[in-house]
Amino acid sequence: MSNIRIGLGVDFHQLVEGREFWLGGVLVPHHKGALGHSDADVLLHAICDAMLGALALGDIGVHFPDTDNTYKNIDSKILLSRCAQLIGEKGYQVVNVDSTLCLEAPKIKPYVPQMQAVIAERLRISIDDVSVKATTTEKMGFVGREEGVMAYATVLLEKYNN
Amino acid sequence: MSNIRIGLGVDFHQLVEGREFWLGGVLVPHHKGALGHSDADVLLHAICDAMLGALALGDIGVHFPDTDNTYKNIDSKILLSRCAQLIGEKGYQVVNVDSTLCLEAPKIKPYVPQMQAVIAERLRISIDDVSVKATTTEKMGFVGREEGVMAYATVLLEKYNN
Amino acid sequence: MSNIRIGLGVDFHQLVEGREFWLGGVLVPHHKGALGHSDADVLLHAICDAMLGALALGDIGVHFPDTDNTYKNIDSKILLSRCAQLIGEKGYQVVNVDSTLCLEAPKIKPYVPQMQAVIAERLRISIDDVSVKATTTEKMGFVGREEGVMAYATVLLEKYNN
Repeated sequence: MSNIRIGLGVDFHQLVEGREFWLGGVLVPHHKGALGHSDADVLLHAICDAMLGALALGDIGVHFPDTDNTYKNIDSKILLSRCAQLIGEKGYQVVNVDSTLCLEAPKIKPYVPQMQAVIAERLRISIDDVSVKATTTEKMGFVGREEGVMAYATVLLEKYNN
Repeated sequence: MSNIRIGLGVDFHQLVEGREFWLGGVLVPHHKGALGHSDADVLLHAICDAMLGALALGDIGVHFPDTDNTYKNIDSKILLSRCAQLIGEKGYQVVNVDSTLCLEAPKIKPYVPQMQAVIAERLRISIDDVSVKATTTEKMGFVGREEGVMAYATVLLEKYNN
Repeated sequence: MSNIRIGLGVDFHQLVEGREFWLGGVLVPHHKGALGHSDADVLLHAICDAMLGALALGDIGVHFPDTDNTYKNIDSKILLSRCAQLIGEKGYQVVNVDSTLCLEAPKIKPYVPQMQAVIAERLRISIDDVSVKATTTEKMGFVGREEGVMAYATVLLEKYNN
């Protein structure tokens, strides 16, 4: 049987005034931020879920329940590191990550290299193996009305030889 | 050329009173159920579509048209078995499935092991190769208003040697 | 490290009167068309983004900015060819593409073989390795109200030996 696995994560958060806006492990200046129990980093959550899903390890809600005070306002980079550890314990590593942020504003292009660096470091892979893309939803739906943000991530995992 | 293929399926159903709520081949107790020509199992439909798509065999609407009375109220597990048969005839088997249910309520965590067992049996793979995740859309959009449900599935297929 | 990579693209466009409706490189007769700087082909854009994302080459907005007059009303088949060239320069080719169009109307089934042919030709792969699926969103959301269209694409890339 193949030594590779694929996973797909999707996440949603409301945007509200008075919250910091964390995306891909980076604090993005904006008049709104994502609402959630943790720091509500929609991009890192989608990547975490894709990693967990690739090995059928449950989902982010199972591992880091929003009813647990341990995870209150937690930095999602810690969750990403924990997911990397979980797949490592199963003998897998990430080959590549591709992700898409769906948000109307702000433009995140200037922050993408920093997001790639953060994610690559936590997953112990090269920046060239971490993709962060962005699109608006062309003013449509809750993302288009700037009520929320959405992210998709797909990951490819490979069993390492040892 | 590579002996592997990937597929991605997405499906949507309205939620209405007076219908059974089938998810991942399991009857989930709820005051609403998904509306559709078949049993409207959004998760199994997404997985079927991902399997068909990986081998460019069309989509679930092509294989099981909702204008055909054969499929009226049909158990989607039968459709899943049929998709497994179709990819088998092409010499492929599923390496792993990762899926995400987007729904506001109810909590499906208690039903996940049973869903994994149903899907694994139909695809003749291990439970460890079947992932069922869940997320709300944080009260946003038609999923957030409990008007509907949505599911995503990704599959990795491999050609078997014989 | 593995010689394969995966990518996932998602794209959105508004539907308006008085525009041609390009989908998968094919002109689809309809009373509305997709709005955008280019020909607004949501399916080809999702595929382009999946290809770019698989190799962390940025996204379609980075490569073909909608502020650049070069891309005003451009045929998205040209963008697809350019993406094929970009991954080729990195030593990769597409193994398979699976895509899903989310739109309420019209039925695109009659146009799918032509879309597959267009995409296969531009990516220099077999029609059997190009999947175009379609689904409605069951009258829900902006797609269900026929205000817009949405597309998802996943691609598998492989490094070729030479």
